[in-house]
Formats: sequence, C-alpha cells, structure tokens
Amino acid sequence: MAEVRNILFIMYDQLRHDYLGCAGHPTIRTPNFDRFAAKSTRFSRAYVQSPVCGASRMSFYTGRYVHSHGAAWNNFPLKVGEQTLGDHLRRAGMDAWLVGKTHMAVDRDGMARLGLSPDSVIGARVAECGFDIWDRDDGLWAEGPDGFYDARRSPYNEWLKSLGYPAENPWHAHANSGIGDDADIASGWLLQNADQPANIREEHSETPWLTGRAIDFIDSHDDTPWLCHLSYIKPHWPYIVPAPYHDMYGPNDVQPATRSAGERVDPQPVYGAFMANPIGQAFSRDEVRARVIPAYMGLISQCDDQFGRLLDHLQATGRMDNTMIVVTSDHGDYLGDHWLGEKDLFHDASSRVPLIIHDPRTQADATRGTVCDALVETIDLAPTFLDAVGADPAGHILEGRSLQPFLHGKTPAAWRQVAISEYDYSATGMAQSLGVAPRDARLFMVFDGRFKMMHAEGGFRPMLFDLLTDPDEIRDLATDPDHAETLDQLYQHLTGWALRPSQRTTMSDAQIIARRGGSQRKGIFLGVWDSDGIAPDELAKITGKAQDRRA
Amino acid sequence: MAEVRNILFIMYDQLRHDYLGCAGHPTIRTPNFDRFAAKSTRFSRAYVQSPVCGASRMSFYTGRYVHSHGAAWNNFPLKVGEQTLGDHLRRAGMDAWLVGKTHMAVDRDGMARLGLSPDSVIGARVAECGFDIWDRDDGLWAEGPDGFYDARRSPYNEWLKSLGYPAENPWHAHANSGIGDDADIASGWLLQNADQPANIREEHSETPWLTGRAIDFIDSHDDTPWLCHLSYIKPHWPYIVPAPYHDMYGPNDVQPATRSAGERVDPQPVYGAFMANPIGQAFSRDEVRARVIPAYMGLISQCDDQFGRLLDHLQATGRMDNTMIVVTSDHGDYLGDHWLGEKDLFHDASSRVPLIIHDPRTQADATRGTVCDALVETIDLAPTFLDAVGADPAGHILEGRSLQPFLHGKTPAAWRQVAISEYDYSATGMAQSLGVAPRDARLFMVFDGRFKMMHAEGGFRPMLFDLLTDPDEIRDLATDPDHAETLDQLYQHLTGWALRPSQRTTMSDAQIIARRGGSQRKGIFLGVWDSDGIAPDELAKITGKAQDRRA
Repeated sequence: MAEVRNILFIMYDQLRHDYLGCAGHPTIRTPNFDRFAAKSTRFSRAYVQSPVCGASRMSFYTGRYVHSHGAAWNNFPLKVGEQTLGDHLRRAGMDAWLVGKTHMAVDRDGMARLGLSPDSVIGARVAECGFDIWDRDDGLWAEGPDGFYDARRSPYNEWLKSLGYPAENPWHAHANSGIGDDADIASGWLLQNADQPANIREEHSETPWLTGRAIDFIDSHDDTPWLCHLSYIKPHWPYIVPAPYHDMYGPNDVQPATRSAGERVDPQPVYGAFMANPIGQAFSRDEVRARVIPAYMGLISQCDDQFGRLLDHLQATGRMDNTMIVVTSDHGDYLGDHWLGEKDLFHDASSRVPLIIHDPRTQADATRGTVCDALVETIDLAPTFLDAVGADPAGHILEGRSLQPFLHGKTPAAWRQVAISEYDYSATGMAQSLGVAPRDARLFMVFDGRFKMMHAEGGFRPMLFDLLTDPDEIRDLATDPDHAETLDQLYQHLTGWALRPSQRTTMSDAQIIARRGGSQRKGIFLGVWDSDGIAPDELAKITGKAQDRRA
Repeated sequence: MAEVRNILFIMYDQLRHDYLGCAGHPTIRTPNFDRFAAKSTRFSRAYVQSPVCGASRMSFYTGRYVHSHGAAWNNFPLKVGEQTLGDHLRRAGMDAWLVGKTHMAVDRDGMARLGLSPDSVIGARVAECGFDIWDRDDGLWAEGPDGFYDARRSPYNEWLKSLGYPAENPWHAHANSGIGDDADIASGWLLQNADQPANIREEHSETPWLTGRAIDFIDSHDDTPWLCHLSYIKPHWPYIVPAPYHDMYGPNDVQPATRSAGERVDPQPVYGAFMANPIGQAFSRDEVRARVIPAYMGLISQCDDQFGRLLDHLQATGRMDNTMIVVTSDHGDYLGDHWLGEKDLFHDASSRVPLIIHDPRTQADATRGTVCDALVETIDLAPTFLDAVGADPAGHILEGRSLQPFLHGKTPAAWRQVAISEYDYSATGMAQSLGVAPRDARLFMVFDGRFKMMHAEGGFRPMLFDLLTDPDEIRDLATDPDHAETLDQLYQHLTGWALRPSQRTTMSDAQIIARRGGSQRKGIFLGVWDSDGIAPDELAKITGKAQDRRA
C-alpha cells in the first residue's frame, strides 16, 4: 500500500482562489492545475491566517496563528523559540528544504541573546524558518535611492548574470521590465507597461528557473525523506510576463470588478483608508484593470505550464506514488474588487486561497477529483503533514487541525466553527492617515461559513457580511440592528479564540493529565490533620523516630 | 542627589495582603515591616497575575501575563525565548542575582532544540529564569514513596548537615517538624502539629539562614550594580515554626473566617469543586484554623524580625541611600476564608498581595509613609525597576507599567482600567472532578477596582462581586439581571486584553513607526501607472537605457 515518503509543498504568491480553471474562472487556461485537481482533493474554502506575505507564511510554517507567533507583518522577525515545520518533521526523521521564497525575517537580537550563530546548523535553521536552504530567493530584488529592498544575495540575479544578461540588476531590467519605444527600460513597476513582454527569454524568467531548481533538488535527494517547500514569487507583482504569455489574454478575458458604488458611501473607516490609498485608487480605474489583469493571468498560465513540467517529471520518475503534493498560495489579490488593490483586508479576493492536496495513498482514492467545502485554515497544513508521515501531532503547539480525514473521505467530529484571520497594518500609511497607535492598528476576521465579521481594534466599528445572501460581500450589515445577535455570537467566538492557551507549549495535554494528583506520593501533604488514612509507605516517610533536638 | 544603584527585590511566599500591622491586622506584630512602610510607599491594591507560586513568579520575572509567557502552573517550564528581568537589566549594565526560591522549571526540550547547554553562561541563565545563582533553594524538600518533590540539591539541607543535624532530610525532620509525645517526629505536614515548636534552633531555621546568605551576598558584591532577588519560602506551609515563635500567638489572635453559609448554596461549579477538596474541607473546620493560623502568624513575625536584621545591616553599611527595596509576595492564603484553603482562586485573600516599595531618591521623599490605592499588577515591578535605573523600558515586551510616577507623587495619565489575573487548574484534581479538558481548565479575573469578575472557560458561569457594597466578596452577583451590563463591560475588557499583541516582541513601536512608508525609496512602486510624480532619483533607478534583448 502506498505511503507518504516525501511532501512537495508548493506555494504561489498572491494567487487568487478563483483564478484557476478548476475553480471556475471562465477565461483563464490552467490545464495542469486542473488535471492535478482531478486526481486530488480541492478545498474550496481555505483561508489564510493573514492576507499579507510575511505573516501568512509564518503561520503556514509554524502551524500557529499570527497572534501566537507574533511575526505580524512583512519583515517583522519571527522570534527565536517559535517551532517550525522543520523542527516537527526532523523529530520524525524527515528533512525540510526550501526552494524559493519564505519572506522570513530573522530575530537577530534573540539569536545574539541566546548565543546562536547563523553559521551553526541549528543557528542557520533558526535564521531560515527551520528550513535547510537549497535556494532562498524571496523574489523582490528592487533597488531605490535607499538601497535594495532585500539586502540578501539573489541567486536568481547571479544565475542571470552567469547566462550573460548584461544589466547590473537583471531581475529588474530583464525579468521584470520590457523595452520602451525609445529603447528605455519599460519598468514593470509602472502599471502602464503591464502589456509589454518582459525583456528576457521565457525559459530564463523566474518561474521556469525555480522549477528547474526544484527538479534538480528532487533528483538529488533520494536518501532521506523530505518536505520540499517550493515557493514561487509569481504571479505576485511586478505585473509583467515574457512572451508568449504577455499577449495570451486581453481585455475581453478580464472579468468585471466585484464592487458597488454603495461601498464608497460612509465606509468603515479602516476600509475607507485602504480604498483611499494609491493602490486602491489605481485599481479602481478600468484602464488599470484592463492593462494589469491580462498580465496577471499570463503569469498564472506560465505557472501552470511549469507545474505541468514538474508533474511530468514526478510521473516519469515514479514519484507520484509516494509524494504528497500541495498547491496553495499565501493570499489573494484584490485587482480592483471592492475598490482595492493588493491584499490586506478580508474579502474573499484577499483572504481566501486555492488549496489542492494530492495524497498518493489508496485511502485517498475515493476523494480524487472531489471538492471539499469545509472551513479550512492554512495552519491546518502543518498538522496534515505530520499526520501523513505518522509524526507526533504536537497539539499543544500546532493550532491547526489535520485535513487527513477529509482526504480519506471521513468527516472529523466537531470541526471548527469559525476561521480566524488577522491583519496588522501598524507599519503602513493607513495607520498614519487614521492616526492609530501601533498596538491598535490590528484587524481580525471571524468567519463562520456564512457570516464574516471584521473586528478592528482602536475603537472603529466592525464590518459584517452575509455570504449566503451576498456572496460578493457588498452589503456591510454591521450597523443593522437585525444582525446584532449574529455580531454578538461572532464576538463570542473571537473572545474564546483570543483566550486560548497559545503559549502553553512546553506541556502536552497528556503530560498535564499525568500530573494530576501524585504530589502526596512525593511527600506533599495538604489539608491533612493527622495520620489517619495516610498510606503506610507515605506515612513512613514523614514520621518515625525523631532525632534529638539540638540544644 | 541619590540614585538607585542596586535593587533588593524581596519576596515572601504565600504572605496575605492583610497579615501585616501596617495593613491593619489587629493582632499580628510586624514592627519592622511597619517601620519600613513608614519610609516607603505601600500599594494597597496589588494583584498577582496568577494566585499560584510558579505562574505568579514567571509573571514577576518576565513582566508579562501568564497568557503571554505560558508557564501557567507550578513546574510548567518557561519556554526558551521568554526574556526575564536579567535579560533587560544586563542590557543596562546590571547583574541579576538569585538568593532563594523561583519555582522555575527549565524548558529542557527547548534548550536541547537550540543546542543550549546548562553549563554555558547563557544556558545557565536560561535554565535559571535569567538569574545568576547565589543560592537556589525552592524550599520544598519533601520526600515520598515516589521520591523527592524537588530533585535538585538542597543548599539548606546541606548546610544543616554541615552543622551536624543528624537526620537524612533535616529540612523535614528538624526545620519542619516537632517532636511528638512518644519522641516520634511530629511532622509539620500534619496540621495538628502546627502548635509544636520546630525541632531546630531558631537561628538555623530557613528564614534566618536565607537572610544570612543575603547579607553575605550584599557584602561581597560592590563592583557591579545588581538586582538581588531575595526570595523566602516562608510563611508558606508546612505550617510550623521554631520557638519562641511557635507560641507567640494563640487562638485569641485568630480573626474570624470571612465566609458565609450562603456561599455553599449552589456555588459556581469551579468554586464548588475547590470548596469540596480536602484543603477547603480542612480549613473550614475551626479547630484547624485555631491550630494553624497562630503558626502562620509566628512565621510572619519571624520574617519580620529577620527583615529588621537585614534593614539594620543595610543601614549600618550605608546602603539604604542607593538601594531600591521592594517587599511583596507571590500570592496569599485563604486560611479558611470562603471555605477554602491554599490559594488558586481570586478572592482578595488569594490574589491580592502586600507591595511596599522604598525608593531612596529625594523625588520619593514626599510619598514616604503614604498608601497608594491605584490598581497595581505585579508585572508592574519589572518596568519599575528598568525605570529606576534608566534602562530601556522595552514596552513591546513588558506588559506592566512603571510605578515610578506614584513613587514620585505623580499620577500617570490613563492608568489601567482593570487588573487581570489567571489560574490554570488543568493539572489539579479539580479538573478531574469537574471532567474538564486541559485547555478548558482555566480561569480569568477581571477587576475594575469595584467589580471583580471570574470568567471560567469550559462553559461554566462566571462569578461577580461588588467590592464597594460587599468588600468581603460574599455575594455572587453574576446571575443578577441588574448586573448584566456590568458583566458585559468586564467581558469587553477581557476581550480587549486577550487580543493584545503580546507576542509581537521583536518590533518596538518606534521601529514599527519608522517602517511606515519608505519602501518606494527601496524601489518598490505600488499602484503607479506611469512615471509622473516619481522623484527623479527614484525614477533613475528603474528606467534608463535598456540592455539588448537576448535573442
């Protein structure tokens, strides 16, 4: 019977839940994701723990809520002591490798305080979110007057240079820019250039490069069972793609924006601030959507082709039979829906992601090609992986739940009632424009499968949507008295969640239960008047002939 | 002008807030605590973060709520990565030393995972709650059929043996037992023996021994400024004390129990389970109180005499002028109040502690001998210490607030509205008798200065007391419809508290604010259509002559 030996954990960056053919997009072409879904289980209601790269990924990798691990936004360091997939899987004899992006920032102060050197094996893993590094490439090699956004070495830029690409920063000048009319760089940073072909040979662009690196990794790691986190930067911005993908889609393939004029009338203040930012303003313009979305779709179709290349390789080398394969994303992209761009808030366009899991075991045969609409959180992946390889579930540390029952056609008892997501905007301009203190610039989503609430710290009113009657999340019901009780119930869920013992990670439930009673067996007697009823062996320890009093 | 060079942080164990003369106890004699209070500020409403030794102390030492540090009960390890007083004070050039008890359990798995050896300086501090060790003596050297309660070496037992005390475990046989009629050991574990003199010379009992060790420390540490945590086991049980303290108090000195028959009628279930345990049953008997409380008071008067010895030594060596001295306790002792013994729940007898702070600086002259009734949490001490020595307040890590304004006669703006305390009874027999799962066996106190609520996880009803009209906390108002709104307000405080960003400890507010904006200066352009309005130096980085396309 087939077993799960290896785990290929594939993440795309900023891939919307609904931009796959198998998810119902009417015009996008993703035959390889679709054929993969046909022999896997697709989870149609998977929500990220935070709709922003860094925080979302730290939740994927720790299996814990943002409120628990504290790395609440991009480049907020993950504190030393937080355990990751690597820690849990190595205890089960597996390796954990990284090919691509994590967006993890190292807690340098914490490492220094504990004397951990990044040069040591332990230190290197702490500094890399628990992974061993095949390639670490966060994919944002932007440079400005204040220097590079990411100060690390760029394996991708080094590779392009080795191929002879002449620019100082070929990631920008070639992979993420076109050539303008007057032979200037048509920078991919400018949305008007999104219809240009990137100035690079397609096979040299980022997605094919990383796919090749992943194949190299797979072919060279047959000794120890592994989890390989293959983590792509695309279809994340800059929105530009090489030929032939740059003109694979046109304005006719762009779906109308999910938005209504009513959303702009007296919006909840934090939502209003995000609508008012330059990104929301830009993506509210039809010409921006018409220029950008075809490029975004082209980037996805390129991801799809490369995924097909990877699947073919796994098939050809017989690895489909013992590899669990997961396809997901760290968050979505508003693309103009709700008058917003980027991600950050909790509408489905932002907080809901694709999640397709291929379990090679025969127990999963019955669910192949099916869709599971259970309320899933992306922290569920870590326990699913541990479950798949028979490792300690570490339920006192991991806050998600194994999805294996769903994969094997079972319905778990008492599945979660709500999905929680969080967003910390304390480091953004919106906190500034709203005049909110860092500790108050935080948002929480509570979604019970029908009603989705956004709670905002700092004294702002909440938002509430009924996805049954309003699947597009257009009508904010938070101020409707008829929904006061619903709001109250969602707040009760929020309180119960917030009070969870998320830091009680040094004691398992089994250890706690084993502690009950027993201290009297170690000589501690409480509320005992005399020796009546004390076991003889216990009594013998506390009485018996006295020694002379010292005068 | 005087400055704070050293900090002497004195903790007694299980000392009730109201068992000092200066706190109004009608019969106890504590002249030295009283004279100390006369030249210090006494905080009359100080609440511990958990009414149990281990969890309460981890909050004192980390300056964080139990919900934040996770060491929720006795011997639940404090997870590697949590910072303590020692970490914060060493950054300010101070040492942090321990003389006595911490009840800290080391996170061995966490240390092993990070490769930290207890033999290294860093590892030793991590293993000892951030302190350097002068003496570590947790003071519970009980032994039963299953071995010792505490497997460490006992410096106190070793000292007694060096003095020629013949017993195998002189801590038990001499310091904590008397001699029975037939020359058997009259074990201090049996409450009926509480009126016996301990079978030891007074100067050899635990409190004088530790005081001597503290004086030795002080006299030998003049080089580096220090915080010295002098942490006594007494007046903690076993309730037995050497002559002359054993008969210093009699039944006439015992105050009537604060309790009423009504409390036993349909009690809140968790409260009911604690009343039903053997300790509650024993301390509900008048003969137990009449026998035990005089011994408890004798232990306190012995602590008082030894405190006087210490004060005289500091005075004689001129150290009063540059030493901040704090006297407090880790929790109280029910002693039969509310039909309970021990601590654990949130009535004042258990959760409220003495707190007297002597600030040697002239700015504190105006408040000497005064009483401050501000709502204080014991996590306020860590920031008070950092404040006193001008260290980084670390407000993104420490959750308390500096008490220095009160010491200097100022009233801080927007002081806290509620005090929070927590109790995790998952490892106790009460969780078993109530049939509660480990994650649900947790209690929370929210006290706004008038109304005190106990919230219980696991679906139990709350408790509510109005300390203005019912200072003895006898009438539970939680089910009274007239107080529904009060309950709702306290729950809102609980929710706000529970949602705090307690794990966002790798980014200070200042660092977060400094991050706002600025990514465009590092070449990240979002929502930008064309080059209009981009600063020339920024534009130069993303345009300029293109390189030839590679054919």
